[in-house]
Amino acid sequence: MKQVLVLGGGLVGGVIARNLAAPFGDANDGNEAVDVVVADANPQVRAALTKNYGLTTSELDITDAEALTRAVQAADVVVGAVPGSLGYRMLETVIRAGRNVVDISFTPEDPLTLDDLAVEHGVTAVVDAGLAPGLSNLVLGRYQQEYDPLERFVCYVGGLPKVRRWPFEYLSVFSPIDVIEEYTRPVRLKVGGRVVQREALSDIEQVILPHVGSLEAFNTDGLRTLLSTVPVPDMLEKTLRYPGHAERMRMLRDTGFFSREPLDVDGHAVAPIEVSSRLLFESWRPGPGDEGHDLVVMRVELTGQLRGRLLVTTVDLYRAYDPLTETTAMAATTGYTCAAVARVLLAGDYADPGIRPLEYLGADKGVYQRVLHDLARQGVSLNIKQTQPD
Amino acid sequence: MKQVLVLGGGLVGGVIARNLAAPFGDANDGNEAVDVVVADANPQVRAALTKNYGLTTSELDITDAEALTRAVQAADVVVGAVPGSLGYRMLETVIRAGRNVVDISFTPEDPLTLDDLAVEHGVTAVVDAGLAPGLSNLVLGRYQQEYDPLERFVCYVGGLPKVRRWPFEYLSVFSPIDVIEEYTRPVRLKVGGRVVQREALSDIEQVILPHVGSLEAFNTDGLRTLLSTVPVPDMLEKTLRYPGHAERMRMLRDTGFFSREPLDVDGHAVAPIEVSSRLLFESWRPGPGDEGHDLVVMRVELTGQLRGRLLVTTVDLYRAYDPLTETTAMAATTGYTCAAVARVLLAGDYADPGIRPLEYLGADKGVYQRVLHDLARQGVSLNIKQTQPD
Repeated sequence: MKQVLVLGGGLVGGVIARNLAAPFGDANDGNEAVDVVVADANPQVRAALTKNYGLTTSELDITDAEALTRAVQAADVVVGAVPGSLGYRMLETVIRAGRNVVDISFTPEDPLTLDDLAVEHGVTAVVDAGLAPGLSNLVLGRYQQEYDPLERFVCYVGGLPKVRRWPFEYLSVFSPIDVIEEYTRPVRLKVGGRVVQREALSDIEQVILPHVGSLEAFNTDGLRTLLSTVPVPDMLEKTLRYPGHAERMRMLRDTGFFSREPLDVDGHAVAPIEVSSRLLFESWRPGPGDEGHDLVVMRVELTGQLRGRLLVTTVDLYRAYDPLTETTAMAATTGYTCAAVARVLLAGDYADPGIRPLEYLGADKGVYQRVLHDLARQGVSLNIKQTQPD
Repeated sequence: MKQVLVLGGGLVGGVIARNLAAPFGDANDGNEAVDVVVADANPQVRAALTKNYGLTTSELDITDAEALTRAVQAADVVVGAVPGSLGYRMLETVIRAGRNVVDISFTPEDPLTLDDLAVEHGVTAVVDAGLAPGLSNLVLGRYQQEYDPLERFVCYVGGLPKVRRWPFEYLSVFSPIDVIEEYTRPVRLKVGGRVVQREALSDIEQVILPHVGSLEAFNTDGLRTLLSTVPVPDMLEKTLRYPGHAERMRMLRDTGFFSREPLDVDGHAVAPIEVSSRLLFESWRPGPGDEGHDLVVMRVELTGQLRGRLLVTTVDLYRAYDPLTETTAMAATTGYTCAAVARVLLAGDYADPGIRPLEYLGADKGVYQRVLHDLARQGVSLNIKQTQPD
């Protein structure tokens, strides 16, 4: 039986491991059974995965390169689901160990800088294998083949609470620091074939989506690998929130509440972000009745010449919390995509040494269809339609 | 020549002193000339008042009760324009010294608790002699005599910048702590003859006023002495701001940014209000082009039975920064009211031992008309009309 080693048993890593061990409920839909091991340094995390889901776990300090190299030897495919700050070194070690890998760690570093190393070791390293980046890149990769040429790619994506509570109408189980980082980091997007810079939270527009109604969309820095891997002249990614969120966050940002520049408070240097992230953590933390009730929405718009006509392909995704498997929409859309790609690699249906974000996999029609079919079987469906632009 | 001693030569104290020394430009409009002395501990403040306006000053530590008692001996009327935190002790000392006084220090303590002391010393102590409380109380005191009975009193009042800048559309030269205090302190108002409590920033409504257009009004705790001095069954005071301000301040308050409860930040106890007030001070501080360009708007609505009919009297005030005298609208509306009342006391036209907020003075038609005439001569006019309610 083939083996997958999942590095990191956190919120998303745990969902990936469960999904790889028992996809599609009891049925396995033609997939070979696979031996799944979750490696994590935290004994509570390991104990919970074994007790609740019968998963096999092993103790591993991911920052220990020697131990990591030994741990991946038996794996046919490695899945990386570690904190972003540890992701780049983990990826480098796994590549040097010669193992194929699917990663959703979203490293702050550019994973493409490991391309030569992956080619040298004959390793297929699929990175950013989540929702966006991830599934959105897969769709772009596919339609880039269909269009002649694809002129414009827009990705709207966001995680939302089902219950809207004033003032932020937003929930997160994580520290707000990562979200605040998205609201402050300059945004790179492509206009007319050039990479241009915009302020985060800029170009707020209203978007009406099925199931959720009016949302707002604003620029965030989410294109990542697409800025260099595909030649589409106009590309942007926007984050979706309930209307009003962006203006509130801009107000906080522009008044200095997200500043890392310390103020002197009674003789102590205090960075406003330290206080703000503590207060927002409390405000954004799910309360009674909120827990797990999240939604994920994504719309990808692809515009260009298709069979001789100017056409827009609109790809919509909506997913809610699943009470049956107790899986958040965010973990499901991210983790199931990652698991589907891992199954493609396990089956030997994709092998192309190098750093391979999903726009590469999408170019292969068979891989694209297989991942979409796999996701649809688990209630993560894409609703696709083509129209002429207004 | 009679003497007025002005305690405190700050932004408002300085304007009062200038106004008492040379009211109505060159003309004195029938008022006796008066000898004005400004007492202040700060040598820079004294030097500036002498250099720029030729005012006589004296050095005085207002917290030194003996020095204050000596200083007020020669004064026919004392004007109190000290920080609120020093106001109550100052007032008590001046009363014990037997001097009539007009005060705009807006003490956090209830000045009415000094009533017995003022009666005992035969001192007329006019308190809260600014705009609101102040001129609004004078108007209420007058119409309480005219109506039979006066059923409802509403005062809308606010200081605004002429130039609106996102996100707060608000400017202040003072520390935001006092404004934040107004946005957090529970509001007392009267409904159906009872004092009830409301949350600050509550009951946000839109108000359209001459010169400025749409504003928003919300509850703040501004009735002060009126809660006990007049028997009007329905009374409320609301603060005016440009629309959106209140929701932003509520967002900050309700997320904890105004909390005095310390958070542990790297081992140091930091109260969020300390950081927030520093950031808001920077954001609200007048910048190039803003300096002095303030507006003051006030609307008082009085409803009840007048000459046998249900009538609403609407009293509107609008004042802008005066470039000729370089006087802000806030200092003019506050300081000119205080100076007008001081002139009434100097002329011996009002004497009634006790603590006397302006609702008492308004009951006297002659005093009311004299103050209004005095203000109108200086461009602080009340626009009064009576209508039947909708």
